[in-house]
This record gives sequence, structure tokens and C-alpha cells, in this order.
Amino acid sequence: MSLNFKHKINGQDLIIAISQDIKTSQVLMVAYMNKEALEKTLETKKAHYWSTSRGKLWLKGESSGHVQIVHEVLVDCDEDAVVLKVEQKGGACHTGYYSCFYRRLDSDDLKTIGKKVFEPEKIYGES
Amino acid sequence: MSLNFKHKINGQDLIIAISQDIKTSQVLMVAYMNKEALEKTLETKKAHYWSTSRGKLWLKGESSGHVQIVHEVLVDCDEDAVVLKVEQKGGACHTGYYSCFYRRLDSDDLKTIGKKVFEPEKIYGES
Repeated sequence: MSLNFKHKINGQDLIIAISQDIKTSQVLMVAYMNKEALEKTLETKKAHYWSTSRGKLWLKGESSGHVQIVHEVLVDCDEDAVVLKVEQKGGACHTGYYSCFYRRLDSDDLKTIGKKVFEPEKIYGES
Repeated sequence: MSLNFKHKINGQDLIIAISQDIKTSQVLMVAYMNKEALEKTLETKKAHYWSTSRGKLWLKGESSGHVQIVHEVLVDCDEDAVVLKVEQKGGACHTGYYSCFYRRLDSDDLKTIGKKVFEPEKIYGES
């Protein structure tokens, strides 16, 4: 499957990948995928992304165990973005929240509304 | 409100903006916002984006009337992406579908599963 990897960051050709909880439809996170990340995702049914900060392929949950089991992949009109409908193990966010979108913009403040499901220092170790 | 406009495309500093139907939680589209687009969105409660293809600020629905009334803005952990919970007038997609994510990847095919809600040629004129 060749999509339109038109987002170019540090020499990589990428699509945007949004993950969404398959049961509640909550948006969990957004990241980029290169061609290899998409292929690995389809092959293994576990979400893989391209980490633009680390410049490497990244199996979501590789250190935490909080993998995303991919049930469906939706493709947008331009074929440069996908929605992954996933079963999220543990939590999606490295801060311990179930979703990375755990805060709401209220006037000029960020109000935490999300659910914390794990303690990051227990999962990733003290830093 | 200053977020982390870290996605750099053609000299613009951008965040990723995902719009989601406030009632059904369906993901409607994904696009970028610069600082001005975010400010206009918060000010007018109508979704504004930065069009990377046209290089301009873009009020969603400016030609079609299919605006997005923004009820909530969620912010992610890195503050470089937002989810807009919106009431979508008409349809979000320029192809006439309610959501831009109207196709599912089935093996190597794209299967249309979305709902067409308008005829593009009637809205945008013949091209």
C-alpha cells in the first residue's frame, strides 16, 4: 500500500498517524509514520511510528509494554494521514495518562481532565 | 496561549490540529495551525487552519459554508498538537464525505465506508 508520504521532516517522507481508542473513540496520540512504520504496523498489527525527535523507527510500547493493537486503519482523502483504531494496553502517554490529550484549554489555562493510569517512574525508571 | 509550534513547513511554525465530531467522536480531518490560526479559532469559535498547500490562513468552510463550531480544545503532552471538538456543518471533506477518513484499508485496497453528505460540484462549482 503506497500512501502519500508528503510530510518531509529531517529527510524523512511521512504521513500523520492519529490513534483512537476502538471502544470509546477517544483520540490517544498523534505521531508520524514513514513507509516502513506503516508496513510494520500492517504486518504485526502493533502500531509503529517514526520518531522525529530520535530519528528512528519506534514500536509504540517497546520500553513500557504499552503497545497499541491495531484493529482498523482509516485513510484520508489526500492519502497523507491515517487513523488507527486501536486497543491501547496501559496508557498511550509517557506522562502516565491514558491519552496524550489529557488537558483542556480553558481561557488561557490548561485544565487536566484526563485519567492517569500508570506512574511513569515505575515504568520507565527514575531519570 | 502559546503552544509549541514546532512543526516547521515552508517557514511556518505549526501545530497539528485534529478535528473530532463532538457528538460521535468521529475524527473528521487533520491539518496544521500556526499561531494566528489558533488565535482566530479561539476568538471566533470557528476552526481556522494554516493551509500548507496554499500558504495562507484558512477559515474552514470559507467557500463551502461547512464551518466547524469549536466547543472544546484539548492539548497534548508536548503542546504541539490539539484536538478540536466540533460541530461540523455540512461535511468536513472537500470530496463530499462527512469525514476525510472515509476509507478503510482492507488488505491492499481502500474500501469506502464513509457517508457522502453533499455533492462537491454543487458546492464548489464545476472545475
